[in-house]
Amino acid sequence: MESVLENCSDRKRKTLLAAMEVFLDKRYDCTSMDDVAARAAVSKPTLYKYFSDKEPLFAEIVRATIGEIDDLERLVAASIAGETSVESGLFVLARRLIGVLMQPRILRLHRLVMANAERFPDVGRNWYEQSFEHVLATLAINFQGLANRELLHIDDPLLAANHFVGMLMWIPINKAMSTGDNSSSPEELELYAVAAVRAFLAGYGPTSRSAIGENGDLKHEAK
Amino acid sequence: MESVLENCSDRKRKTLLAAMEVFLDKRYDCTSMDDVAARAAVSKPTLYKYFSDKEPLFAEIVRATIGEIDDLERLVAASIAGETSVESGLFVLARRLIGVLMQPRILRLHRLVMANAERFPDVGRNWYEQSFEHVLATLAINFQGLANRELLHIDDPLLAANHFVGMLMWIPINKAMSTGDNSSSPEELELYAVAAVRAFLAGYGPTSRSAIGENGDLKHEAK
Repeated sequence: MESVLENCSDRKRKTLLAAMEVFLDKRYDCTSMDDVAARAAVSKPTLYKYFSDKEPLFAEIVRATIGEIDDLERLVAASIAGETSVESGLFVLARRLIGVLMQPRILRLHRLVMANAERFPDVGRNWYEQSFEHVLATLAINFQGLANRELLHIDDPLLAANHFVGMLMWIPINKAMSTGDNSSSPEELELYAVAAVRAFLAGYGPTSRSAIGENGDLKHEAK
Repeated sequence: MESVLENCSDRKRKTLLAAMEVFLDKRYDCTSMDDVAARAAVSKPTLYKYFSDKEPLFAEIVRATIGEIDDLERLVAASIAGETSVESGLFVLARRLIGVLMQPRILRLHRLVMANAERFPDVGRNWYEQSFEHVLATLAINFQGLANRELLHIDDPLLAANHFVGMLMWIPINKAMSTGDNSSSPEELELYAVAAVRAFLAGYGPTSRSAIGENGDLKHEAK
């Protein structure tokens, strides 16, 4: 999907980015169109020319961010295709996924979508289906490709993709979302990436658990 | 930890429950102490006698729910201790965990905590540490016990516990939290429970992946 932002005029794009900052800082309920106009340094008539009200503005902010997450799909495919062994591909993939998904701005928008999911289920469903499910489906296709080459043992590639991401993201995303601390150290994220890849290879990998070395490398190349 | 609610007078307890419903229905920003007094059918002076303001009331609602989640810790320990084989214990555990954590009221409170985590980090941190981390630590102790009996292969029991819960909960909790649809069918949750236990046993179990049958049962008993 093409990013919504690419289709916007420069001024509308800047207004949308300013609006996103206001929503993130003040939350949906406390944000007014006046706040947005002031932050974006546009007049109220200009703002209303772009966005008819607060709700469609919120929906467009979420759509624009989904466009960014689309880039993640390309990264997912490139991570696996660009590496010579399954384990090095999974390490690259894990680091990229956790790096993108743990960005403070993505975490804050994720929190904003969840906070308003009961009131705006269409926005939340769009976010879930177009970002979350899309990335997982792309990952599943790539895992199936590895399974076809006997580099992974997988019955259900979509479940395997969810297990991979679930093991990778469970601790850091819950910690950040619950405590409001959106900053994770690179060292901490690296630990989760290594642990998830090791556990995934132990369960779904081409060789038995005993073939995985202490540093997470396979001792011998997958056949 | 003893539930906070158990220490309350009956009237205060009812007021707290009514306040929780108002917060869940109206969100934090749109809830007033007037709304709470009306829903709880108490006077404003009575309400203020119990809770000095909206913020401590919110914190107390979260603490009270943490008390309920404490019950989950006891369930976790009982699930594993009460079963004769590791896989049947894990199935009981998975079903209980997903059943409790996917209750609509727990999901909605989880969403309320996340929505306000940046503003009230102490409430969010309390929720995270006293519910999330407590349950995981209890699970880790039980997994270590199974590893000591050579029924699981685990280097880091806390990571293994997070991987188990991450694989179990990743799809349903993200779907519910993002889309605002708090209802999951028992059949759907059962699929996630079975898939998580199978994947966990493939990676951390006492026997190789090939020993796990199609229905998730081990073909032969763990030694």
